[in-house]
Amino acid sequence: MSEILILTETQLRERIPLDASLIDVIEAAFATLAGGEVVMPPILSMHLPQANGEVDVKTAFVPGLPGFAVKISPGFFDNPSKGLPSTSGLMVVLSSATGRVQAVLLDNGYLTDLRTAAAGGVAVRHLARADASRATIFGAGLQARLQLQALRLVRPITEATIWARDPVKARALAVEMSAEGLPTRAEADPETAVATADIIVTTTPATTPILRADWLRPGQHVTAMGSDQPGKNELDPRALDRADIYVADRLSQTRDLGELRAALAAGLIARDAAFPELGQIIAGQHPGRSSPDQITIADLTGTGVQDTAIASHTLSLFA
Amino acid sequence: MSEILILTETQLRERIPLDASLIDVIEAAFATLAGGEVVMPPILSMHLPQANGEVDVKTAFVPGLPGFAVKISPGFFDNPSKGLPSTSGLMVVLSSATGRVQAVLLDNGYLTDLRTAAAGGVAVRHLARADASRATIFGAGLQARLQLQALRLVRPITEATIWARDPVKARALAVEMSAEGLPTRAEADPETAVATADIIVTTTPATTPILRADWLRPGQHVTAMGSDQPGKNELDPRALDRADIYVADRLSQTRDLGELRAALAAGLIARDAAFPELGQIIAGQHPGRSSPDQITIADLTGTGVQDTAIASHTLSLFA
Repeated sequence: MSEILILTETQLRERIPLDASLIDVIEAAFATLAGGEVVMPPILSMHLPQANGEVDVKTAFVPGLPGFAVKISPGFFDNPSKGLPSTSGLMVVLSSATGRVQAVLLDNGYLTDLRTAAAGGVAVRHLARADASRATIFGAGLQARLQLQALRLVRPITEATIWARDPVKARALAVEMSAEGLPTRAEADPETAVATADIIVTTTPATTPILRADWLRPGQHVTAMGSDQPGKNELDPRALDRADIYVADRLSQTRDLGELRAALAAGLIARDAAFPELGQIIAGQHPGRSSPDQITIADLTGTGVQDTAIASHTLSLFA
Repeated sequence: MSEILILTETQLRERIPLDASLIDVIEAAFATLAGGEVVMPPILSMHLPQANGEVDVKTAFVPGLPGFAVKISPGFFDNPSKGLPSTSGLMVVLSSATGRVQAVLLDNGYLTDLRTAAAGGVAVRHLARADASRATIFGAGLQARLQLQALRLVRPITEATIWARDPVKARALAVEMSAEGLPTRAEADPETAVATADIIVTTTPATTPILRADWLRPGQHVTAMGSDQPGKNELDPRALDRADIYVADRLSQTRDLGELRAALAAGLIARDAAFPELGQIIAGQHPGRSSPDQITIADLTGTGVQDTAIASHTLSLFA
């Protein structure tokens, strides 16, 4: 029997940080997605109302990488009342040549958190103004914190603002980020929080819009991270209409799961409208921001190619 | 961090046999499927022509069981030339209450082989004549052998016949089964092989029919195991029309992946025709065989509920 590498969450946390090399890895993964040879089937999504939970399975085969990941992501929303995080899961890495199991990464969602944050960094690297220094985050959870970390790796961020539905959490995150050397304040009024930003990242479980289109100003970039299910929606659908450039991580997904879904449902955008994907901009197949006054929006729902990329990155670090 | 049980193929082979208790477990799983509370999403199926491979992911949530399996099944068809089996994979068992990983069963497809064979036993238990004693297997692979083992657990089998495209393999299996106490012969003519059988099991990768409808005789039962992909087909589509009772493991799957697909494509059966599922017969919601002269067909494509059932059974034996 061949050796199967089994890594625990603790081992992964010790060895895999959110750093510039990870952002490069995720950027390269999106670029391969634009090449058209990646095989990425639709997400297997299982809703479990009887357990107040859901399970998503994502995968992508990337030619040229030695392995590919199949990721199992459960979300069980009664867990916090049991003292457990809602999300958990693992990644299984299969050989691209033989399909045999190479590794089991028992990450409980840690690698997903990282590759999601790294995608935010990639979007900002390609869409925000080069001089963007003021970041506003909608949301105060773990991903809010990680998004700020990712932004600092790709833009000269000097100050940050947090808006969250729960002002106590917003203040706690502001204190934490300030202690890490980034002057950060909590802002109770979302419109004010937007007004002072070059980059806005929304990372909430909102099901009705929390960011209004008429708050946006020329030159701003918005990354919407929160929506990854048909019921979620963070951006006023008119924001997509107002943006100069709307970019999807995967258009076939954002039509069904992302901010684009709500804009299509509202009839503001034609079902067959063409939009670039992030990988096409990275690969130079489509122009990104071409003027400092454009409003740009990145709609990120999470893709299997990111999972395969971070899993391969992980295996290379443990080899 | 909670304990995750990790079991190797060797441990599983030592501890989990194909026996009557496993057939009961799989039977019970099919019965729950008839209850309507099982959540079983469509199979995630990834085709990888660049690697001459495919990966299927199956899952099912069964209320009342403590855990549910997500099974990853790769098939890479150049593997035999590398000295490896084509199929491999594993099952991940998640808690039904919290979604957290309970176990990783590194079975390389062993549990799939068992639960597939056990389903054949369940189908025969409910559809073949009680006095069925003569079995014919089309196919000479591992599953052919396991199907014979399963039949012997549910019917008084006294003799067996093997037909296979490769007569050398058919003879080898006949010798092996005879040595295990079941008088078995290889038969070169498939029509003759069918003529002498009470039960016929087809377990081949055929893509054009290997069993003709006019070979079938009153009282026979046919279990078609081989087709689990849109391109596969073992039974002459007219056989489904000729049968008194056609039973699917999961009708939504057999319409797309099973023998029913070919019969629908041939226009022999209406797309909206109603057929019972195996679980409905087990649960008494639909009559099974009601006379010794009926011809019955079971069309088995493999279901996630079988994976969850054998995974739960495994965990109970290792608890």
